[in-house]
Amino acid sequence: MSVKSLTTPLEAFEERLREVIRSDVEFIRLIEEDLVTAGGKRVRPQLVFLASGALGGVPHAVDMALVVELLHSATLLHDDLVDDAETRRGQVAAFRKYGNAVSVLSGDYLLARLMHLLAEMGRMELVAMVAQTARELSEGEVLQFQVAALADYSLEAYERIITGKTGSVTRLCCEGPAVLADAPAQQRQALAQFGLLYGQAFQMRDDYLDLMGSPEVLGKPVGGDVREGKLTRVTLRLLEEFPQEVGQILRRKGEGVGDLERLRTLVVQSGIDREIVEAIRERVEAAVAHLEALPPSPYRDALEALARKESSRLS
Amino acid sequence: MSVKSLTTPLEAFEERLREVIRSDVEFIRLIEEDLVTAGGKRVRPQLVFLASGALGGVPHAVDMALVVELLHSATLLHDDLVDDAETRRGQVAAFRKYGNAVSVLSGDYLLARLMHLLAEMGRMELVAMVAQTARELSEGEVLQFQVAALADYSLEAYERIITGKTGSVTRLCCEGPAVLADAPAQQRQALAQFGLLYGQAFQMRDDYLDLMGSPEVLGKPVGGDVREGKLTRVTLRLLEEFPQEVGQILRRKGEGVGDLERLRTLVVQSGIDREIVEAIRERVEAAVAHLEALPPSPYRDALEALARKESSRLS
Repeated sequence: MSVKSLTTPLEAFEERLREVIRSDVEFIRLIEEDLVTAGGKRVRPQLVFLASGALGGVPHAVDMALVVELLHSATLLHDDLVDDAETRRGQVAAFRKYGNAVSVLSGDYLLARLMHLLAEMGRMELVAMVAQTARELSEGEVLQFQVAALADYSLEAYERIITGKTGSVTRLCCEGPAVLADAPAQQRQALAQFGLLYGQAFQMRDDYLDLMGSPEVLGKPVGGDVREGKLTRVTLRLLEEFPQEVGQILRRKGEGVGDLERLRTLVVQSGIDREIVEAIRERVEAAVAHLEALPPSPYRDALEALARKESSRLS
Repeated sequence: MSVKSLTTPLEAFEERLREVIRSDVEFIRLIEEDLVTAGGKRVRPQLVFLASGALGGVPHAVDMALVVELLHSATLLHDDLVDDAETRRGQVAAFRKYGNAVSVLSGDYLLARLMHLLAEMGRMELVAMVAQTARELSEGEVLQFQVAALADYSLEAYERIITGKTGSVTRLCCEGPAVLADAPAQQRQALAQFGLLYGQAFQMRDDYLDLMGSPEVLGKPVGGDVREGKLTRVTLRLLEEFPQEVGQILRRKGEGVGDLERLRTLVVQSGIDREIVEAIRERVEAAVAHLEALPPSPYRDALEALARKESSRLS
């Protein structure tokens, strides 16, 4: 069953999103309209709706989807400074148009609106969960920066970064509906674990493709992470296998002629590509196994299909 | 009665602050230690403690003080990008040491911790109030930027900016304790109004001294707002009185020889100085009048004294 054929309240979501982020300050409006129009794939709201469906329907599901999307969007706005990304979702990064200041403050505005939604939803446990997610997110992002600055690479740091940046939010997407549904502890735990592992696999794939994907599919040049000194599992393994050669390439941030092509060749020659693909597949399977705790439904199937997509199309 | 002679739980506050913002991510720790060590005057926590005292004591007062201080500190971290300030609280601005990225993300970390405190405090009404404050704050800051970018000055915009940047937070400092104490509506309303008006007066004085104060007292060169194109009531009135000459000076951001001195002279010659001082005094008196709704106490007296300070020492 394809995810798209399931009825999800995505239209209600889009409508309410526009309503929630509306501001009478023009510069905020310009940035938020950019985000809304750019749209993105709404992966996180979809996760909320599928998890809600798998629980047989959940009150406040649209608001829950808004909370995760606003958190994600605020992170994008605060992240553009970090990434120095040329493009984001195919648009010129917001901060290049309006300046860092307005980006950061508009991100803060989204966080304020998110908090307002949480107050309306009236579940204090959810406030605590969002606080924990936001903490892991910011710690993960700063750790990524710190690791890049100090070139202090480790698998432990990598796991924490992908958990913070992505796993913590996808966990919230899946566990949040369970809280709103007052689901049994076992189902809640299963959804939380599914969300966490799925998000980690998602980020692992993203990081892998950043070096190993084709620029056409990526929609950007390969090797962005290498240029920014960001730790990924691929570069970590390359450093272990070829400390001297890869160490040199990473220190010069892949800016030598043929550097990135050389890294790609080494990945394939050493079999690191198969190793990483296998690690992603394992993470996906671990995620899917947790879905057993939920009753069979097309929504559960769709969650499984969503996760399985991460271990396919890895080039 | 001086404010300092009142026993406030400021020591408990400092201790718990260190505990709440502790992170095992080193780069976050460095920035937060900067903030904690720099200390600042803790004006906002003091307001919380005085309002709590005026209500005869309030549960969670220390946590409430932490919430407002974390919100304020996060704003400083996100604001350094905006201000391009050379110094902040006498320290080198955090972002110059560690980069914009870490500053913004460490600010986000503080917001996450603040949300966690709110969840622990367990009052949903407070979550809504903090959300509203954070909204006004971010909207006020973006509006300030927008007004500077478009040179679109008006008294209405100025009032909204000082309310967003300062009044909304000081209102939270005073109204929050009333919520926690389940105070009667009249007392809650009075404290909210006192906080709002006091904060506006505080910001009006700050803006006035930015041009008219002495550099020694300010601890920085005068005219920072003029250089950043920021709207203040002084520049607004100057523009009304001397549209051509002041318009030219503001368009070149006060960078001509003798520009700032000329502005100061015009302010005194035209009597705008006395006019602004009077406006601040009126705002302070309006704030103080609301305190009548509270029973007499040394805490109420201290709130009054705090507000009155804003309309004295205006040079």
